[in-house]
Amino acid sequence: MTNDASFTHHAGVLAAQGFRTAACTAGIKTSGKPDLAAVVNLGPDFSCAAVFTCNQIKAAPVLVSQESVANGQARAVVINSGNANACTGEQGRTNANAMARDLAQGLGVDNSDVLVCSTGLIGEQLPMDVVSAGIHHLCARLQDDQAGESTAADQAAAAIMTTDTVPKTTVAVGNGFVVGGMGKGVGMMAPSLATMLVVLTTDAKATPDMLQQALDQAVAPTFNTLDIDGSTSTNDTVVLMASGASGIEPSQSELNNAVLSACDDLANQMQADAEGVTKRVTIRVRGALSDAEALEAARVVGRDNLVKTALFGSDPNWGRVVAAVGMAPVTMNPQGIGVAFNGHTVCERSTGAAGAREVDLSAPDIAVEVDLGTGSTGEAFVRTTDLSYAYVEINSEYST
Amino acid sequence: MTNDASFTHHAGVLAAQGFRTAACTAGIKTSGKPDLAAVVNLGPDFSCAAVFTCNQIKAAPVLVSQESVANGQARAVVINSGNANACTGEQGRTNANAMARDLAQGLGVDNSDVLVCSTGLIGEQLPMDVVSAGIHHLCARLQDDQAGESTAADQAAAAIMTTDTVPKTTVAVGNGFVVGGMGKGVGMMAPSLATMLVVLTTDAKATPDMLQQALDQAVAPTFNTLDIDGSTSTNDTVVLMASGASGIEPSQSELNNAVLSACDDLANQMQADAEGVTKRVTIRVRGALSDAEALEAARVVGRDNLVKTALFGSDPNWGRVVAAVGMAPVTMNPQGIGVAFNGHTVCERSTGAAGAREVDLSAPDIAVEVDLGTGSTGEAFVRTTDLSYAYVEINSEYST
Repeated sequence: MTNDASFTHHAGVLAAQGFRTAACTAGIKTSGKPDLAAVVNLGPDFSCAAVFTCNQIKAAPVLVSQESVANGQARAVVINSGNANACTGEQGRTNANAMARDLAQGLGVDNSDVLVCSTGLIGEQLPMDVVSAGIHHLCARLQDDQAGESTAADQAAAAIMTTDTVPKTTVAVGNGFVVGGMGKGVGMMAPSLATMLVVLTTDAKATPDMLQQALDQAVAPTFNTLDIDGSTSTNDTVVLMASGASGIEPSQSELNNAVLSACDDLANQMQADAEGVTKRVTIRVRGALSDAEALEAARVVGRDNLVKTALFGSDPNWGRVVAAVGMAPVTMNPQGIGVAFNGHTVCERSTGAAGAREVDLSAPDIAVEVDLGTGSTGEAFVRTTDLSYAYVEINSEYST
Repeated sequence: MTNDASFTHHAGVLAAQGFRTAACTAGIKTSGKPDLAAVVNLGPDFSCAAVFTCNQIKAAPVLVSQESVANGQARAVVINSGNANACTGEQGRTNANAMARDLAQGLGVDNSDVLVCSTGLIGEQLPMDVVSAGIHHLCARLQDDQAGESTAADQAAAAIMTTDTVPKTTVAVGNGFVVGGMGKGVGMMAPSLATMLVVLTTDAKATPDMLQQALDQAVAPTFNTLDIDGSTSTNDTVVLMASGASGIEPSQSELNNAVLSACDDLANQMQADAEGVTKRVTIRVRGALSDAEALEAARVVGRDNLVKTALFGSDPNWGRVVAAVGMAPVTMNPQGIGVAFNGHTVCERSTGAAGAREVDLSAPDIAVEVDLGTGSTGEAFVRTTDLSYAYVEINSEYST
């Protein structure tokens, strides 16, 4: 975020012109914290694109939103925390549709122009009485003029939190246009709670195809490189809405850059706030036959519990990195693996380097670099975390 | 194990006729515990088969043993703990060859008739002075008549331990022949220590091809279903030697059954002794298009940290199981997933069943059953454990 006054005032989803947002405590969360939010596109354009979880088990709101966004248009998104509305069968589908309908009626738009996101416990039906009352309340608040207001955007970012410890908002400034956004979670990081959710807004003029292309290229190196525990939730959703209110028509590459910047910022915030984190770890793999193979190898290392526990212990145990990478189903030179921790070479040609055991990993950021030794230039990275006592504690607490 | 007196006396690798074994404290382990063992086949046959790690990064002893066993013959295996001799380059290869040569010279056999196994820290060179002296000592002890002795077999099982808390031996009785064995570890379960190692002996008359077939069919549903943390070490090795001393020539299926029984027993012991275990967990997947797809889905569930921490907390959090299985790249019916904990249905048609949150998982054994809902009969299981504080503690301790 810059120090530019015009952006410190308009944070998150209100950083872009042509949007309104509201949040409230509907009573879905037993904690009594805020649990419902809506973001509304005031136009003049209503272009929209989205990316959804690749988990085969998709929550009801994902199925509903996939249908609604198919035509590239959306006027609003309604989001609840405290309940994922996943594994809830026909009733869950009915409830997700009801959420869209309730907001659409309040705004005077078509049901199919409202997307729905939910995050929280899997397998429970939504308490539709309080959800409907909450949406009714949101509609009233959305009538207010929010020009110059940053409170509403911050409140919306707080209302979509589950076990996040801080709200996550972002602003990226393009050439005459702005991309704003908010997000929560990361993968299935939460204890029995699902979902990373992101809502991005822009006042650029852009077609749905442009938005989808910008989103796809941005998600790959940001949210898709974030691999805290290898899990993909039933609810993961990233939505990008464009109002066109700036009147600026950016090139595809200008739009791409701004969306990428916003996603990168949110992904970093998610990594830093992942459960039980004591280390932020980047695994970069080089020397693979292709970028795709490098990514696959990086994921195997980043998901390895023995690597993650070693890093929790600040232990430069490169043998675990080599053993992990050797499991990756990609081409490598088994006698030619290189490993570096924080820029210090600890393994060359699959053999320990001098001083390898003395590398200091006590700081909270750890960079792991692996060269697969094929001589090719395939490269990729993932962001992960260590595996700590706190991770076990948070994730083993009873769900009910 | 039966109560038959003839087997309570002859445990482990000496349960089969025609073998000798010895162990000692060479001084490889800094703890001063036993760290070197050998198992010798006295014949009249010297058939041998082995299965090695599928990790692309193979330790020096694996590379040496793969070459030596290629002709289907072996006279002995020498095993050290305390050092994996992995990621040790040319020097490591030279040292592994020297271990084979030292034992071969002491026994008066060809170097290529001795297999080598190592387990311990990755990336350190073996202290060859103490290793050679230790092997010399073993050769002297192997001259003793060990008939009726169980001590030597138990000592060998203890000498190959790393973080195992108990030695692991087994006996399987066939029709006129016996399969004995010992094992240690499980996958990369140990803190910075590699390897599961198993040495099986039999007095059956069997060709190397018969042994290999028996081993392959036995390893698949036993050691290969054991998935504590998804890791495969640089050193994993299972060796089966046949002396033919019983004079009995079993059918392939008789041999298969006995070897399977021995492997199953050792795999169960390894699961129960895995690091930081408070729960022994079986994940069985049914209703897959094929057994292979069922196995892939079972592995995804068994490796999921959110499932494993929930089970540590005795939490019947079936939503995590459904979310995990949805990530498996196999065919399933997303609306038709079924889950049961300890025989109690907790999820039907991808929706929670009544009473699901009340299922009692407080006992140390947990059976998780998943139906992928395809209507096909593909089925498989894996054995895993929970993810506990102790796992993190053991695996985050400094390696040096």
